[in-house]
Amino acid sequence: MVQYNRIEMSESGNHNFLRALLRQSVDRTPVWMMRQAGRYLPEYRATREKAGSFLNLCKTPELACEVTLQPLARFRLDAAIIFSDILTIPDAMGLGLYFKEGEGPKFRYPIRDRQSIQSLSVPDPQNELKYVLDAIQLTRYELDDKVPLIGFSGSPWTLATYMIEGSGTKTFCRSKRLLFEDPESLHKLLNILSDSVILYLNAQIAAGAQAVMIFDTWGGILTPKNYKIFSLNYMQKIISGLNLEILGNQVPVILFTKGGGQWLEEMAGTGCDALGLDWTVDIADARKRVGHQVALQGNLDPCVLYAPPDVIRQAVHEILDAYGPGSGHIFNLGHGIHPDTPPEHVTAMIEAVHEWCLSGKITTTL
Amino acid sequence: MVQYNRIEMSESGNHNFLRALLRQSVDRTPVWMMRQAGRYLPEYRATREKAGSFLNLCKTPELACEVTLQPLARFRLDAAIIFSDILTIPDAMGLGLYFKEGEGPKFRYPIRDRQSIQSLSVPDPQNELKYVLDAIQLTRYELDDKVPLIGFSGSPWTLATYMIEGSGTKTFCRSKRLLFEDPESLHKLLNILSDSVILYLNAQIAAGAQAVMIFDTWGGILTPKNYKIFSLNYMQKIISGLNLEILGNQVPVILFTKGGGQWLEEMAGTGCDALGLDWTVDIADARKRVGHQVALQGNLDPCVLYAPPDVIRQAVHEILDAYGPGSGHIFNLGHGIHPDTPPEHVTAMIEAVHEWCLSGKITTTL
Repeated sequence: MVQYNRIEMSESGNHNFLRALLRQSVDRTPVWMMRQAGRYLPEYRATREKAGSFLNLCKTPELACEVTLQPLARFRLDAAIIFSDILTIPDAMGLGLYFKEGEGPKFRYPIRDRQSIQSLSVPDPQNELKYVLDAIQLTRYELDDKVPLIGFSGSPWTLATYMIEGSGTKTFCRSKRLLFEDPESLHKLLNILSDSVILYLNAQIAAGAQAVMIFDTWGGILTPKNYKIFSLNYMQKIISGLNLEILGNQVPVILFTKGGGQWLEEMAGTGCDALGLDWTVDIADARKRVGHQVALQGNLDPCVLYAPPDVIRQAVHEILDAYGPGSGHIFNLGHGIHPDTPPEHVTAMIEAVHEWCLSGKITTTL
Repeated sequence: MVQYNRIEMSESGNHNFLRALLRQSVDRTPVWMMRQAGRYLPEYRATREKAGSFLNLCKTPELACEVTLQPLARFRLDAAIIFSDILTIPDAMGLGLYFKEGEGPKFRYPIRDRQSIQSLSVPDPQNELKYVLDAIQLTRYELDDKVPLIGFSGSPWTLATYMIEGSGTKTFCRSKRLLFEDPESLHKLLNILSDSVILYLNAQIAAGAQAVMIFDTWGGILTPKNYKIFSLNYMQKIISGLNLEILGNQVPVILFTKGGGQWLEEMAGTGCDALGLDWTVDIADARKRVGHQVALQGNLDPCVLYAPPDVIRQAVHEILDAYGPGSGHIFNLGHGIHPDTPPEHVTAMIEAVHEWCLSGKITTTL
């Protein structure tokens, strides 16, 4: 289906990504990108066109598999992430997810009162979300163990904000109004979402996801106290509820709170294996703070990829130098890649990672 | 012009705000709100209607003075802030500022190439920005030394992002593209803006501003290294260039980087007198980190003001307790008040501050 002509792989497959997440020895610092299957790739845009809509692309396993594999055919990436959307769960709950060109996700039936929280129920992944599990199974088959496949979900707080706002927002006024006015109802919603995420991620693991990532896109808009109460606690509940061993293999969990740089210690305390870092954090500082506990994934500003290759190279090396020698670092962007990124600049970024590793600056042990 | 019937003031005026900024003894923790003159007040909406447009309101000193004083007639606030916009400088540079209802600020002639940076020049505050100085003079006269008047400006980096983007953005792709592709041109722009802000704030001080605040709304979207290079350095340059003593009185400087919670130490090192804090920072933690160096202003999430008065009261007390006893705290929101805030909830907030202070929890010395 996809030619891996540009990927150099050992016989037994490339496990650097999973090993780095568990802070085990690696051959080189693994690298992947958030939203690596996306609009910046012409081949993605072609498949998206064929699918008719973004949501249809997510919901057609063959096409989701196709776009998941596209960046791996182009770049020497060390992991694939299943092509999907963080809002599949609210959609499965009946909120009617849709996308308006250039406006981001919207819901036809957002949460507008306490009653609509009462009437929500936990979706059955084998039923309403089966298309994601099918896409994972198919992609694992196609990947043939060459690189690991990541599954993911939005965090309960992040899903709740979208469900309450109903569309994009800068101020999150509706979500926070509920938080401050009626925290009990919000907790009810977050509990239903946590139960849903647990079932969903366990089903993804059973279907073949070899690592899972929780995207807490909007945890960073909370106060430190409310971050713990309304976001972190529920992510911790999820981690405790996951089946993180399958066929003798450990399934690492990555936690990513955008804007969560002030709370790395608390995040590392959840029992996750790795933290995703956005670019507002100095990764050297982050390693000092929590590197004895978790691996770190990140954290190039995706806007660096607008710059010429020599600027990219320098910025990549700065991050690798800042993390320093030893395993436990997964190179990534600090946020999803922007749609107007030139693909050849991604090549420059990945080559810069490999070049640094080949220079002997990384040691294979922790 | 305005009745201060609800403000209790001593003979000599209320200097708690200025004294707290300088960490001198106070009678009570002073309180004011970012955007306290604004759309949440029906009397503001009436004046805004009369003015015809937001920009005309800014540019008519009598009306700007009128709305500046409105919240002081309603609430027991300890400071006034001149009603204006952070984008007056780029407007004075000829970029053609305009506001589209519900869409935020836009520029008719945004910066699109190196040439448009070359052709910019530093505006003369006594000419292109005289309306702001006139509004300050008039407001000082009307205030009659009852409470101090704050002047302000956007930070060079924040002004630059608006000038480059031309309208609202979530990703700041254009600004960061320039930063990474052509940092020299960006530095050129930031230097012109810094020189402009120095002249502008010095003119505001000469016209009667008794404290000045620099709003760095978008410093928080940068990496730690680039925050220092492209935002903080220029704010430091501004602070060094200000005439901060007038008629024997010190004019304190407040620095506010939204999302700057990770960089408080660096911000405190600029020579400013106080830091504005958004709500993602624990003020107890901030005081431990930099409270020996600067005063702290903040940091209630403005969305708390949607909640019932007893929730507001508790949230206010939590912040005051977290700062603890002693001077050096100016109570404020962590961001501008939202337009749909009920004014009576502002009363609840201010009363909660006074109640806490009356309970004897504050000591008058540092």
